[in-house]
Amino acid sequence: MADTIAVGVLGAAGKVGTAVCEAVDAAPDTTLVARVDKGDRLESLAEQGASVVVDFTHPDVVMDNLEYLIGAGIHAVVGTTGFDEERLDRVRGWLQTSPGTGVLIAPNFAIGAVLCMAFAQQAARFFDSVEVVELHHPNKADAPSGTAYRTAALIAEARAAAGVGPSPDATSSELDGARGADVDGVRVHSVRLAGLVAHQEVLLGTQGETLTIRHDSLDRTSFTPGVLLGVRNIASRPGLTLGIEPLMDLR
Amino acid sequence: MADTIAVGVLGAAGKVGTAVCEAVDAAPDTTLVARVDKGDRLESLAEQGASVVVDFTHPDVVMDNLEYLIGAGIHAVVGTTGFDEERLDRVRGWLQTSPGTGVLIAPNFAIGAVLCMAFAQQAARFFDSVEVVELHHPNKADAPSGTAYRTAALIAEARAAAGVGPSPDATSSELDGARGADVDGVRVHSVRLAGLVAHQEVLLGTQGETLTIRHDSLDRTSFTPGVLLGVRNIASRPGLTLGIEPLMDLR
Amino acid sequence: MADTIAVGVLGAAGKVGTAVCEAVDAAPDTTLVARVDKGDRLESLAEQGASVVVDFTHPDVVMDNLEYLIGAGIHAVVGTTGFDEERLDRVRGWLQTSPGTGVLIAPNFAIGAVLCMAFAQQAARFFDSVEVVELHHPNKADAPSGTAYRTAALIAEARAAAGVGPSPDATSSELDGARGADVDGVRVHSVRLAGLVAHQEVLLGTQGETLTIRHDSLDRTSFTPGVLLGVRNIASRPGLTLGIEPLMDLR
Amino acid sequence: MADTIAVGVLGAAGKVGTAVCEAVDAAPDTTLVARVDKGDRLESLAEQGASVVVDFTHPDVVMDNLEYLIGAGIHAVVGTTGFDEERLDRVRGWLQTSPGTGVLIAPNFAIGAVLCMAFAQQAARFFDSVEVVELHHPNKADAPSGTAYRTAALIAEARAAAGVGPSPDATSSELDGARGADVDGVRVHSVRLAGLVAHQEVLLGTQGETLTIRHDSLDRTSFTPGVLLGVRNIASRPGLTLGIEPLMDLR
Repeated sequence: MADTIAVGVLGAAGKVGTAVCEAVDAAPDTTLVARVDKGDRLESLAEQGASVVVDFTHPDVVMDNLEYLIGAGIHAVVGTTGFDEERLDRVRGWLQTSPGTGVLIAPNFAIGAVLCMAFAQQAARFFDSVEVVELHHPNKADAPSGTAYRTAALIAEARAAAGVGPSPDATSSELDGARGADVDGVRVHSVRLAGLVAHQEVLLGTQGETLTIRHDSLDRTSFTPGVLLGVRNIASRPGLTLGIEPLMDLR
Repeated sequence: MADTIAVGVLGAAGKVGTAVCEAVDAAPDTTLVARVDKGDRLESLAEQGASVVVDFTHPDVVMDNLEYLIGAGIHAVVGTTGFDEERLDRVRGWLQTSPGTGVLIAPNFAIGAVLCMAFAQQAARFFDSVEVVELHHPNKADAPSGTAYRTAALIAEARAAAGVGPSPDATSSELDGARGADVDGVRVHSVRLAGLVAHQEVLLGTQGETLTIRHDSLDRTSFTPGVLLGVRNIASRPGLTLGIEPLMDLR
Repeated sequence: MADTIAVGVLGAAGKVGTAVCEAVDAAPDTTLVARVDKGDRLESLAEQGASVVVDFTHPDVVMDNLEYLIGAGIHAVVGTTGFDEERLDRVRGWLQTSPGTGVLIAPNFAIGAVLCMAFAQQAARFFDSVEVVELHHPNKADAPSGTAYRTAALIAEARAAAGVGPSPDATSSELDGARGADVDGVRVHSVRLAGLVAHQEVLLGTQGETLTIRHDSLDRTSFTPGVLLGVRNIASRPGLTLGIEPLMDLR
Repeated sequence: MADTIAVGVLGAAGKVGTAVCEAVDAAPDTTLVARVDKGDRLESLAEQGASVVVDFTHPDVVMDNLEYLIGAGIHAVVGTTGFDEERLDRVRGWLQTSPGTGVLIAPNFAIGAVLCMAFAQQAARFFDSVEVVELHHPNKADAPSGTAYRTAALIAEARAAAGVGPSPDATSSELDGARGADVDGVRVHSVRLAGLVAHQEVLLGTQGETLTIRHDSLDRTSFTPGVLLGVRNIASRPGLTLGIEPLMDLR
């Protein structure tokens, strides 16, 4: 136990929180010391000796949670949504009074999804053409997915920064919608299919060759390795970290 | 030589005709006996003893070619385009006067493309969802491709015949075009990418499982095995055969 | 209710049986009338008016179940394993005394897996090369999977019947195992990867083109559509039916 | 013309050299000023004002070529094979006497292949499991391919450096070869299929998700964008550069 990281979980009774608790329990280098949910006292986190706390709660309570955690010098790994610049600034302010504390706020903990996006950005400027195909279960309300939209936007940005022109396209006769949606000049196609979960493919092509980067999320627990990555690294990153990518030290 | 099929090629000097000549030459059970092109006499085909003639010429001359071939009792394998019902009826008329002769007219000789279409039709009614993704080089003018359009229409037909309802789709917020084109209720997505040739994927999904049928055409010569299939089988199929599928005796 | 099929489930409390009950409940044309498990009386199935019974139980009890069901004129859809020729002959014997009753015994109810195999067999003789790649979670004990082994054997059989020679292979320097396992001349490759469930790809190739048939099973419930297919069709197929493929009326 | 790079090509009459000449001709920012082949005088390269020379010749002549080019202060982009440490040291020696000159020697100019390898290395330590599947035409003599072997070795190195253990694998019953070849603990599978060209897939998996990086080379000209990348960047990289990756400035 002496060598493991003492972890508390906020929102421990929720679906995601439960999966986090299981993952922390199962990992050899982390120990679950506190499960806190609605109605429980935040103070129990410090009392149980948590050095890192994972927060998958709700936008309504996450700011109070963070104020407490930072005040107590407890590092935080946050998957709760709803952070805008104003909220991030308040977190930065609290962190100034507790300079040794680290807070990670990430919109996506799926390591594969983050790498898919990072690699797409790195590769984008070397290929004449780039398109994104995302495939999800048919109950999804939005098309394209938020991740696909963001991936396309980042690709477009990387190409613009490198001075790469638009993907070639001689289409002169199109059945409405065939060529997909246009996100900053990058075509995005959304497939909805029973049996699927969440999948994304970035296709890049140039003279005689193509590169395909595909992420398949087959299971709701795919975020847990990313959460553990955060838990293991946040103590050595004081201040605010946005997204898990900086922790991944790519290249 | 005694056991090989004597083959003549019409349009022998063209790009496609050249590939056909090479394939006939290379196959152990066929012998190339005559190459005929613009300006050459059709009669040389009979004089050289061709028992089957392959025609990749032009809509302007193919009817004359067929009239000659059928009259001479030479079987024909035709990849030339431009056949409508009126033309097919004329061919059928000529065949009545030469009942032992076989004529195969096919829009697509790529065996993989034909099987992709056939399997999609067979499978369509067993899955809640079906979509088609086709991927081509960026010089293609039409989206979706003719093959993808036809595949989707055949899938829609098979589903209607089996009383299968529309694929489920909860999309309520769509960026224009993201969900692809709608061909009789089947969504079709067209990717255009440098480096690609011609590719098509039929995705079928139901509770907990998906089936994907993918055809990749990597090379302009992908039609030659289908032509040889025609050459080998047309003598035993008197009359008019449309498409290579009937020759494939699927199941 | 008048138009729905009255269904009983044997082994209703098991993991698979529970999923079958849910699927029968959810389908608009079937009604769950009886759940029977260890300790329950088989007679309740007839008493509750079941016209079809689904059996996912155990080799130790399935023969008693079938004797009862056939005697009572109840159609059976059986996913329980352990049937050898001797057992099948006993079932056939019982069916002779109840000629209107249908029994379906199937090793695999995943429609996609069955189609993948069927299409691979149909296509095998049209391509120079065929290989199978199966991909599973890393807890699987056998490599290749039973399904991949069977698929390869059926492909080999189809090619032999059509007189197709071996797939071309110029490999002269091989690192041990690189070219996979040899099942009757068909190469089979087994990938084991965390995150995967159960997947299989049949790759077929000829001059300039390839055809890929891929089945992805993402979820333990992927057998339920096949069970419902059995439930819906077994009444019109008196006698013994082996595998769901005959019910699928492919082409 | 004032703003374009003056390029000479050594081995200009060969298959590869011809493709390089065409690519240099077609690119808007490069001008082909000299084609040199066996029997031609190297001096014409300087006389025609070449500032960069591309060398796809033969191990027997490439060292003489380089000695001349470096002596003349002409930058070199070299795809010729056969460089060992001794040869590289001689090149480094010549470069010391011409410190402003850049020489790029690369075993692989296909940008997609290089990125596939680079991304596989970056991602390897974040996933429990990694395997490599390479797919080639059936005339290939070695299995696995050199690229796949190297990719697997680099993955193994990255995982070892990060302290990641072996990929989990519960296989207890294996048909010989099913699990592929073992390259430093990374399984590599080699598919040989008519119709294919050169393809490689790196599969990475962890809890509930997988990441797949796939490179498809569909055409012999897929090296030309990498050669142009070298031509455009080598002048600003004096000294010896090995592989195109350093020019790509990944992240």
